[in-house]
Amino acid sequence: MSAPAGADATPLLTGRLVTLEGVDGAGKSTQARLLAEALRAAGATVTLTREPGGAPGAEAIRRLLVEGEPGRWSALTEVLLFTAARRDHLERTLAPALAAGNVVICDRFVDSTRAYQSAGRGEGATAPRETVDALHRLCIGRDPDLTLVLDLDPAEAAARDGAAKGAETRFEAFGGAFQTRLRAAFRAIAEAEPARCALVDAAGAPDAVARRLRAVVFARLGIAGP
Amino acid sequence: MSAPAGADATPLLTGRLVTLEGVDGAGKSTQARLLAEALRAAGATVTLTREPGGAPGAEAIRRLLVEGEPGRWSALTEVLLFTAARRDHLERTLAPALAAGNVVICDRFVDSTRAYQSAGRGEGATAPRETVDALHRLCIGRDPDLTLVLDLDPAEAAARDGAAKGAETRFEAFGGAFQTRLRAAFRAIAEAEPARCALVDAAGAPDAVARRLRAVVFARLGIAGP
Repeated sequence: MSAPAGADATPLLTGRLVTLEGVDGAGKSTQARLLAEALRAAGATVTLTREPGGAPGAEAIRRLLVEGEPGRWSALTEVLLFTAARRDHLERTLAPALAAGNVVICDRFVDSTRAYQSAGRGEGATAPRETVDALHRLCIGRDPDLTLVLDLDPAEAAARDGAAKGAETRFEAFGGAFQTRLRAAFRAIAEAEPARCALVDAAGAPDAVARRLRAVVFARLGIAGP
Repeated sequence: MSAPAGADATPLLTGRLVTLEGVDGAGKSTQARLLAEALRAAGATVTLTREPGGAPGAEAIRRLLVEGEPGRWSALTEVLLFTAARRDHLERTLAPALAAGNVVICDRFVDSTRAYQSAGRGEGATAPRETVDALHRLCIGRDPDLTLVLDLDPAEAAARDGAAKGAETRFEAFGGAFQTRLRAAFRAIAEAEPARCALVDAAGAPDAVARRLRAVVFARLGIAGP
């Protein structure tokens, strides 16, 4: 499969990496799916994926990260594991899809690593932001073209996120104060990089949030709405 | 337990990290055990450990690294996973033991990552040495006090290593030419850092090799023989 080459292809659609970020329960997975449907309806070839995971090796690393005791890993070991999973995902899934000209929608990416590590664990167990950024430059080297930060009160997100999550409860176990610091960290990222990021209100019905996101994405990627 | 504090304690024994390196089958595990016995007989408190692994989390990462298909991970993803396992090992096992004044004997450490990655996989899949070193400085930051490079012809090592290894065969699957490049990489490391490293002939009976290693270790750490 090669990328469309004609003058009437949609060059602004080719090879774009769009990431969704936000606290647990902000609705990222649902919105990623709805956004993929809307972009497909507008003619784009879409790859829908997630982190940590998105490739067989990265999914195996995911299980080490999201299962087990909260204190299982230090913040720095965790950053290394997330970066390993991201490198595998980049090589096996993201890079081929971007090279083929797809719009890639990724549920979480490097900003989650930045926010989760800098938000702390109560006992001051954080990895320095500079270390997270240095690892990203050294081992990943690809920033998103557009990052959608879904902003929601963590209490509302927790109520919404009540569905059974199986064994993937390790990060939720860090508690409500952690989620509040996390929201602040995501807002700070969106504020610091306005050209790359858009802060989107994630309160309300999924369809209403989806409309807000579509408006941002279609405008930023230069796509005419369906 | 605190470190010995008297003037007649052996200060040169406190908190020393001794690593054993070399190709698969060079006899590192056996020699690490014999060296631990000799140092204990000389009065040292010894922690005997290994990489990848040496702590519960690091052992879980080890399983991702040593099992499965040779092409399961790229060289760079692998370096990230080894560094994650090393960070966990450092925090949970090495640092507490060194802080307590122990002699820590570690079967493989950062030089294995350097050698294995730079030795290549036949299809040129290597991670740059500078990346390995940058990750080590950024996330580990502790060099061994003494590194014993066990030097052995890979053909002899393979014959010696014939015992069943269970599922831990991923690296052996890279083949004989890989082991030859690996030996050269270990020799180059020993040559480049003579103050830290000692190249030791690992051919012959285990007892003879153990005597050679003891002579080097006792001289470099300033210990009187038993």
